[in-house]
Amino acid sequence: MKYSELSLEEKREQFKRAQIEFDCLCKLKLSLDLSRGKPIGEQLDLSNDMFNVLTGDRDYIGENGVDYRNYGMLDGIPEAKKLFSDLLEIPAKNIFVGGNSSLNMIYDALTRLMLHGAPGVNMPWCKYDKVKFICPAPGYDRHFSMLENLGIEMITVEYLENGQPDMDKIEELAKDPEVHGLICVPKYSNPTGYTYTRETVRRLAKMECAAPDFRIIWDNAYFIHDLYTEEKLADIFEFCKRYGTEDRVLYFASTSKITFPGAGIAVMAMSDNNMAQAKKLVNVQTIGSDKINQLRQVRFLGDADNVRQHMARHADIIRPKFDLVFETLEAELGGLGIASWTRPNGGYFISLTVMDGCAKRVWNLMKEAGGVLTGAGATYPYGKDPRDANLRLAPTFSALHELEVCIQALSTCVRLASLEKLLEGEN
Amino acid sequence: MKYSELSLEEKREQFKRAQIEFDCLCKLKLSLDLSRGKPIGEQLDLSNDMFNVLTGDRDYIGENGVDYRNYGMLDGIPEAKKLFSDLLEIPAKNIFVGGNSSLNMIYDALTRLMLHGAPGVNMPWCKYDKVKFICPAPGYDRHFSMLENLGIEMITVEYLENGQPDMDKIEELAKDPEVHGLICVPKYSNPTGYTYTRETVRRLAKMECAAPDFRIIWDNAYFIHDLYTEEKLADIFEFCKRYGTEDRVLYFASTSKITFPGAGIAVMAMSDNNMAQAKKLVNVQTIGSDKINQLRQVRFLGDADNVRQHMARHADIIRPKFDLVFETLEAELGGLGIASWTRPNGGYFISLTVMDGCAKRVWNLMKEAGGVLTGAGATYPYGKDPRDANLRLAPTFSALHELEVCIQALSTCVRLASLEKLLEGEN
Repeated sequence: MKYSELSLEEKREQFKRAQIEFDCLCKLKLSLDLSRGKPIGEQLDLSNDMFNVLTGDRDYIGENGVDYRNYGMLDGIPEAKKLFSDLLEIPAKNIFVGGNSSLNMIYDALTRLMLHGAPGVNMPWCKYDKVKFICPAPGYDRHFSMLENLGIEMITVEYLENGQPDMDKIEELAKDPEVHGLICVPKYSNPTGYTYTRETVRRLAKMECAAPDFRIIWDNAYFIHDLYTEEKLADIFEFCKRYGTEDRVLYFASTSKITFPGAGIAVMAMSDNNMAQAKKLVNVQTIGSDKINQLRQVRFLGDADNVRQHMARHADIIRPKFDLVFETLEAELGGLGIASWTRPNGGYFISLTVMDGCAKRVWNLMKEAGGVLTGAGATYPYGKDPRDANLRLAPTFSALHELEVCIQALSTCVRLASLEKLLEGEN
Repeated sequence: MKYSELSLEEKREQFKRAQIEFDCLCKLKLSLDLSRGKPIGEQLDLSNDMFNVLTGDRDYIGENGVDYRNYGMLDGIPEAKKLFSDLLEIPAKNIFVGGNSSLNMIYDALTRLMLHGAPGVNMPWCKYDKVKFICPAPGYDRHFSMLENLGIEMITVEYLENGQPDMDKIEELAKDPEVHGLICVPKYSNPTGYTYTRETVRRLAKMECAAPDFRIIWDNAYFIHDLYTEEKLADIFEFCKRYGTEDRVLYFASTSKITFPGAGIAVMAMSDNNMAQAKKLVNVQTIGSDKINQLRQVRFLGDADNVRQHMARHADIIRPKFDLVFETLEAELGGLGIASWTRPNGGYFISLTVMDGCAKRVWNLMKEAGGVLTGAGATYPYGKDPRDANLRLAPTFSALHELEVCIQALSTCVRLASLEKLLEGEN
């Protein structure tokens, strides 16, 4: 029965029970953590053969005869370009292979825009009075910190009930010449797990942008990170080609959650114009990324089919955790009308929506009970969740038994916070 | 006998001989390259054991129990900090270990200054009307391209006869509030091979700078790259501490020319203030560098003594090449009064000074003869050598027999260009 439909007496009764449960929890002195969106050791072990794929017996020589131990090859080795080309279905010539961090590649791309502007426009963004970005939210906290750090004003656009960003609002905002871009995770989005539909992708490629240097930061971090049914993300470049907007998209991906988060490789995919500018400007910044590690990844991962099989092994480790979270949330909070959650088909996160004004309270209660959640509000620009209702759950880094306790504890906190809120309404 | 002291007749005679030699050269259709400041395969082989120091058998766990395969540790692993601390004699807490490129770390440091300014001043350099940098020259071409790319105006300061930058001029320039920094390679400088004396280092640390955010980019790329007598570079931070100017210095080094140029690790050493700012800002840009590769370098290199022994093996490969260049230049050009060259005790380069107005001509003649030299002028800001006299020689990447032919060819070109110039003067 929904809490909102309980009588005052019943609410008070439920509140008392929730309080007792919470007190018990606190006595257990638990140490739980649901904040870490990273693979667990067991997943990393899947890639341990990578340590031994290169032995130093002339296997550092590339297919082109180049000694990858030495300087050079700014935009990466052809072997890595080919693998990502096959995986992302983007021509190799439009792929730039970099270092270990796609986040850093995004930062560098934004820095190039700040200091040099977009090719053809060449107005450094730091010279504009104001630069605004559209931020579908809840979204990735590190995207938002980066934009804030660069002095880019963020405009929050909410996801609709259907899991799609509010495209009407986005199209409206793009008419503002001060709006120079949009940042998103289009597949298994952090933290909702939503995937942009073909129609959303088409509209993003098609929409009119007042700023000639409008850029979509397309952070496809979970492009092959399926857990259940595989959701297919439409090819944004295909639409861009149709509408003549290919320069609009800066596309990012990495092997961080395929091999090792700290020691993977990242790629950036771009139009010919953006590629030419990137090569010219990155050439000033470095002689090239770690080609040995690029080769190591390719030698270990093999071809695209092999990567898919490898990802199925990751999924086998992660899926039971997602299952457990869904089951436990359903058992503990189902039907109470105080929380809803997403059911992603892939990615690393589940988004929990509690009653308006309760997310921070839940976070604090969890902290008291020895549990760490990603900061309430962190999934919104400036850390400000307008409804104070969203919480990000990251199940992968916990063992199953911890995870169950953790979600039970969380559910107790959600019930307690909700009842507090409901009773507050009664006074 | 000096060419300048020859009679007109003798000059013409020598010119004819040089021309014949040059024609012979061209007929040989040589393919020579003296432009590549990078280690040769034989040097890289010295580090091939690095491929196998980590096997994936739990040897990716750091001394702190952290799994280095995963995310985290923004400023690098303690093992790498300790090694660089021992090598550079800088406290580990002031060392930030990064990715594979110290050039990229310099670029990032400059970008932070451009977009955020220096700690305590917080005026982004991109907001100033003008930012000027002092550039002792001849210097490293990539430094100059980077500054030019960032829109920083470069002021060339020549080295004096004694191999030191003109400190009187530098001190004078630093009084200009628009001058915000200086960039240099203080030991075995690229391309002269000069090392800054204790007095030069002291004056740089002590000098009054009008700009409160003045920064010295101290690119100590060859800190342990001795070939003959070891030249000791004074500790700039020690002087800075004495004069209260510790925030002035951003110090860089790497293992690029110790292990693998493409797959080494780079470090940045800074005052506590600069370190705090760097950590705060880099945290927005990345979750951390490749810790596995940091660990791989440390496991392979061992301790500071071991690194010194390893560098002695590099020196054994490089030294005969430097010897050969010195001998051949002496045999071919000695006593003619048309060229002089540096005799570095370490590093990767030799700087050749030809007659004023002859460097470009020599470069072109070499090109005709099938030889590639680093662009004439490249060692100066904006590619403009005011005297058109400097050429950078990079002997390491050539085999000994090629190198001899190459220097002989170069010498022929130098003689021909000089005689052209001298005869031009006669007309």
